Amino acid sequence: MADEPAAPTRDGGLVRVRLDIAYDGTDFAGWAVQPGQRTVQGVLEDALCTVLRLQTAALTVAGRTDAGVHATGQVAHVDVPAEAWDESRLVARLASLLPDDVRVRQAVHAPPGFDARFSALWRRYEYRISDTRSGPDPLRRRFVLGWRQPLDEAAMAAAAAGLLGLNDFGAFCRRRDGATTVRTLQALDIVRDGVEIECGVRADAFCHSMVRSLIGALIAVGDGRRPIEWPASMLGRSVRADDVTVAPAHGLTLVQVRYPAEAELTARSRETRTRRSMHPR
Amino acid sequence: MADEPAAPTRDGGLVRVRLDIAYDGTDFAGWAVQPGQRTVQGVLEDALCTVLRLQTAALTVAGRTDAGVHATGQVAHVDVPAEAWDESRLVARLASLLPDDVRVRQAVHAPPGFDARFSALWRRYEYRISDTRSGPDPLRRRFVLGWRQPLDEAAMAAAAAGLLGLNDFGAFCRRRDGATTVRTLQALDIVRDGVEIECGVRADAFCHSMVRSLIGALIAVGDGRRPIEWPASMLGRSVRADDVTVAPAHGLTLVQVRYPAEAELTARSRETRTRRSMHPR
Repeated sequence: MADEPAAPTRDGGLVRVRLDIAYDGTDFAGWAVQPGQRTVQGVLEDALCTVLRLQTAALTVAGRTDAGVHATGQVAHVDVPAEAWDESRLVARLASLLPDDVRVRQAVHAPPGFDARFSALWRRYEYRISDTRSGPDPLRRRFVLGWRQPLDEAAMAAAAAGLLGLNDFGAFCRRRDGATTVRTLQALDIVRDGVEIECGVRADAFCHSMVRSLIGALIAVGDGRRPIEWPASMLGRSVRADDVTVAPAHGLTLVQVRYPAEAELTARSRETRTRRSMHPR
Repeated sequence: MADEPAAPTRDGGLVRVRLDIAYDGTDFAGWAVQPGQRTVQGVLEDALCTVLRLQTAALTVAGRTDAGVHATGQVAHVDVPAEAWDESRLVARLASLLPDDVRVRQAVHAPPGFDARFSALWRRYEYRISDTRSGPDPLRRRFVLGWRQPLDEAAMAAAAAGLLGLNDFGAFCRRRDGATTVRTLQALDIVRDGVEIECGVRADAFCHSMVRSLIGALIAVGDGRRPIEWPASMLGRSVRADDVTVAPAHGLTLVQVRYPAEAELTARSRETRTRRSMHPR
């Protein structure tokens, strides 16, 4: 720790800013910029350019969420010229400028070695399902999947336990060439709270559609279409299983990204970049 | 109790049905039917007519919420021909038919003497305010008022204490001719949970715009524009105070309506009808 510089990283007069972000994904075509689409990244980069009077601002994000997926604990970083950076006013100015379905909760000078994507230790998502026959609470319907059949949360939890640990999740991923689908699934907790089931999913990183595929498989167990052993039986396959339904996006929320202590940031980034040749989601 | 009939009330072959209802008020022009407007009552009555194959279905409601106000614990009743009533399937059929911003959570044969409006002992509303400078959580923004200045919840709670009890709330009500504005304010609890302040308001009944006017007055105390004594100083006035701002509708949710035990229902209705010549909200 003693040999880590106390001063913030500055490269060529740039300051790295960490942004903590929340959004309702309903009206966004996902995180990543796409031409002609309303995306979270696009809306945020435009606002940052306006507030900081920049021509461009390129965000690097911890979790590239798909269209319709929400976030309460998203993290991104952006490198801005030191002279444009004004920590005391940025959050309030962004609050005035941004549409109300996306908020920057905090904007701080990032510690040395911080990289929103590569420094992350783990990501945590929550998926919510309501299985009451009257349908999801209208005040929560944008964030909760309605399921008409009653779900057996104990069966889902038992199936979830079989998926934990270091596995090849190829059966649950949309494949990208040259990218590994091996991940460490650290937690998959199924908890019922009244008529809602909350599925908490934590991993070092996720490949594309992995969380929603895991949830789709657990729902099939919960409503009795599949046995408890079925989801785990697909581990180790390197190709996507056609019989796994990808659960709808709107039940999914990125709730937390965890980073190591300041002194470990650079080492963590290096380790992640070396170990994986894929895009952490 | 012994002389109360055990059988459900049936008048001319009618069954009284109690409906427990939830809605996101954002896209409704309030509860009450208005020509050419999308209202909660209108949408529900249409759905009931379809499901029960009736020409008309007239709902009586506990709390006639204004445009933009939400409900998680609304209660209404409707009298339907006994031959149309099918308790086992009504909730599921309404769930298929209703838009997803309104739900009938429960539909049961009401106990004898039940009247959703006149049997109620009290109504409880919650009003939510976020005073973080980054603005309300995007996932909660439809139900939470954003306030740019920090609010002093202890000052708000002290001001609220002065409003409790049997008072003439004329200063906080939109006047209706011949209707009393005397109410018993049973609770007005101000609780901070992180960046949100939740105001819980309970009374035997409310007159028009009363909850939102009380909250408007408390916000003026909370952000320092008015002293703690100010809201209570207006009690007893029989005319509306022009300097009380009515807080926006979208922060307000009807969360609970309490009814007495079955044997007391008829007596409660009779008492309410006699004591008040106004519309309980």
